[in-house]
Amino acid sequence: MSAGWFRRRFLPGEPLPAPRPPGPRASPVPYRRPRFLRGSSSSPGAADASRRPDSRPVRSPARGRTLPWNAGYAEIINAEKSEFNEDQAACGKLCIRRCEFGAEEEWLTLCPEEFLTGHYWALFDGHGGPAAAILAANTLHSCLRRQLEAVVEGLVATQPPMHLNGRCICPSDPQFVEEKGIRAEDLVIGALESAFQECDEVIGRELEASGQVGGCTALVAVSLQGKLYVANAGDSRAILVRRNEIRPLSFEFTPETERQRIQQLAFVYPELLAGEFTRLEFPRRLKGDDLGQKVLFRDHHMSGWSYKRVEKSDLKYPLIHGQGRQARLLGTLAVSRGLGDHQLRVLDTNIQLKPFLLSVPQVTVLDVGQLELQEDDVVVMATDGLWDVLSNEQVAWLVRSFLPGNQEDPHRFLKLAQMLIHSTQGKEDSPTEEGQVSYDDVSVFVIPLHSQGQESSGH
Amino acid sequence: MSAGWFRRRFLPGEPLPAPRPPGPRASPVPYRRPRFLRGSSSSPGAADASRRPDSRPVRSPARGRTLPWNAGYAEIINAEKSEFNEDQAACGKLCIRRCEFGAEEEWLTLCPEEFLTGHYWALFDGHGGPAAAILAANTLHSCLRRQLEAVVEGLVATQPPMHLNGRCICPSDPQFVEEKGIRAEDLVIGALESAFQECDEVIGRELEASGQVGGCTALVAVSLQGKLYVANAGDSRAILVRRNEIRPLSFEFTPETERQRIQQLAFVYPELLAGEFTRLEFPRRLKGDDLGQKVLFRDHHMSGWSYKRVEKSDLKYPLIHGQGRQARLLGTLAVSRGLGDHQLRVLDTNIQLKPFLLSVPQVTVLDVGQLELQEDDVVVMATDGLWDVLSNEQVAWLVRSFLPGNQEDPHRFLKLAQMLIHSTQGKEDSPTEEGQVSYDDVSVFVIPLHSQGQESSGH
Repeated sequence: MSAGWFRRRFLPGEPLPAPRPPGPRASPVPYRRPRFLRGSSSSPGAADASRRPDSRPVRSPARGRTLPWNAGYAEIINAEKSEFNEDQAACGKLCIRRCEFGAEEEWLTLCPEEFLTGHYWALFDGHGGPAAAILAANTLHSCLRRQLEAVVEGLVATQPPMHLNGRCICPSDPQFVEEKGIRAEDLVIGALESAFQECDEVIGRELEASGQVGGCTALVAVSLQGKLYVANAGDSRAILVRRNEIRPLSFEFTPETERQRIQQLAFVYPELLAGEFTRLEFPRRLKGDDLGQKVLFRDHHMSGWSYKRVEKSDLKYPLIHGQGRQARLLGTLAVSRGLGDHQLRVLDTNIQLKPFLLSVPQVTVLDVGQLELQEDDVVVMATDGLWDVLSNEQVAWLVRSFLPGNQEDPHRFLKLAQMLIHSTQGKEDSPTEEGQVSYDDVSVFVIPLHSQGQESSGH
Repeated sequence: MSAGWFRRRFLPGEPLPAPRPPGPRASPVPYRRPRFLRGSSSSPGAADASRRPDSRPVRSPARGRTLPWNAGYAEIINAEKSEFNEDQAACGKLCIRRCEFGAEEEWLTLCPEEFLTGHYWALFDGHGGPAAAILAANTLHSCLRRQLEAVVEGLVATQPPMHLNGRCICPSDPQFVEEKGIRAEDLVIGALESAFQECDEVIGRELEASGQVGGCTALVAVSLQGKLYVANAGDSRAILVRRNEIRPLSFEFTPETERQRIQQLAFVYPELLAGEFTRLEFPRRLKGDDLGQKVLFRDHHMSGWSYKRVEKSDLKYPLIHGQGRQARLLGTLAVSRGLGDHQLRVLDTNIQLKPFLLSVPQVTVLDVGQLELQEDDVVVMATDGLWDVLSNEQVAWLVRSFLPGNQEDPHRFLKLAQMLIHSTQGKEDSPTEEGQVSYDDVSVFVIPLHSQGQESSGH
């Protein structure tokens, strides 16, 4: 099945969604239209929605040819939060080059059949403008390829060798690696972690050089050697949907889910709050009338709650404030992991957000080879615009309702992605409660696993 | 059913276990026989095995009477690592006093029926001598009672009020508490977390005053208001065993399971390693021959592995070294959470262990009221001496083999605890592989849930 990239914006004359509620993800940063993105055109494999108004195949970053990669479709609705889409995406075939033993710094050009190949899908949800998301879509796959190439000899060995050149210095080196339980998949996880960090540094440099701002979440799926790796930094989500199973493949990183890590940092480095914020969590922001009362609170070391007597310093604005979708870090940001945001500061202060943000993703591994795959087993990846109005169960219900009746349709995964997005627009037949509407950008990949399982990603 | 406390040591003439392998938990700290434990006799409810050579009922800390608490049995084998048992335990009824609204600092004496009552079981596995474990067994329940009494008005309310005195300052205060999902059980979790911290401070003061050293793990179960709370700091373990279910109720905290937290701290405060250790993890300790090679490693931000070129600083002793049971923090300690160890230093250096240790437990909650309880549903709590040689499945198999045939025996839970311990001594009928033997102290509580579920813990 050939690859497809699909993007949709509201057409002239088409009714737009109702006015959006206030509160973009990073409210204090004024939106700036990207002026100049260095390097954004140097990565032809990135699927930069802002620059791809038409539907066309993705090209290989490495070789510039049309890719025969497996199916997987994305659809993006621009919710008109900015001129360019804050949601961005990328997908393509990953071609990992192999270096010869003993000549680590010199690449040996091998015929394509000897490459280690995989597939890559990525969603980036920008805030404070699309700049970081566009850069990530143009860059992250290159970082990942580079990181994987740096460890490819370990990837293709039965067990990663202690020394990359394969030579043993101690006879029991393989035993040490065995005892630690280090497998090839740990190298892919390590490569994903390093690639996110490297990409974050690139974005920091590029935005600074071009005088731009912004950040983005990143959700990446990589199919390699019979396994699907899902790396997530932010509040997008991926789930596996099978006939009798719904399995989360990622977990959201928000100020609420990472409360203890964030409070702990403020405990260790109180100067990061510049005396303007309190690190403690209370059910609501405290005020003068609460002084001297014993109120519910929790600190960095607590997963439970207790009571404390309110002092004057407790009246400051909370480090993490608000509830659910309204929760904000330093009153500013709704996510606690992602790429970019190097310059982001609390409005009218010099307080930086970046020390509280992590660019490192959490990686989960799905052993596709071990699943007894059915035709209709898919992974659904989507930005928070989808998950704000559809639960995992509702998405699974839509998948299971649609796919069995459309098995002959070669575009069924694309249509399913479209249908999922339409379900967020408050249509009457929508499975959401009271036809809930998403006012955010929405992007969806539907990745059929059956073709992934069939394909032997040799090297 | 009346309460029982049981302790067993190897009797004269009875064959002792084979010589123990080297490597006590905190090897560089020489064992010192406790000389003077201030306050150790002031808590009559603590079950201090070293001072209770006979089997006798536990007494209430608060009222000094024989307790009608529900069944739950412990057995301790002293593996002769020290004259006194390094395993210690405590159990008893928790009587939580209630204070009147508006008179927070003045206790109102109510009749016993108006107390909020619960039950408490605790295991402490000492290292570097039994001093910390004895102190913990004498102290922690008092700390917990005090912490619970401080929030008891929140515990007995339908929903914990924003203000402890129950008065609303904002009309929507209950809504804020509701939106945060704060329930009475969160106050118990908070009280357990605070009690562990308070007890750790007490132990620090007491050991310093008496010139003693040592630390201990702590595993506590509390039955209160129809729920069972399990708080764990260390490598003991509690599991729920039912006819068709085995559910872990705690997770072990060791240098391996907390690697990223420990490496992160060393990254933030490199001076804690005094230039003597490397924070990076390698499959084995590196040596001169590895210099310049690219070897497997991981750092604080990585859950996967990668390769790095070895520099001279990588040859230092690793912050976390060894594998499985042999893994040690700073070459010294096998656990990463617990109480005590305030004075513990790496042998022949001034490098402190305490900054890397957490006294805060992880708390899990079992809603006993929601389980359709059977007669034979039990919680098994035990120190690592048991789990080193018996898996969860083997323990469950022993529970399920023993209980159904002994339903009329009023001492069946005691006998089950004894049988579990005998199974760690390499007997022929032991379910362990090749009759594996535990050379460590072993302590077991078997807590029948059926009687807990039946009892209404009113207030």
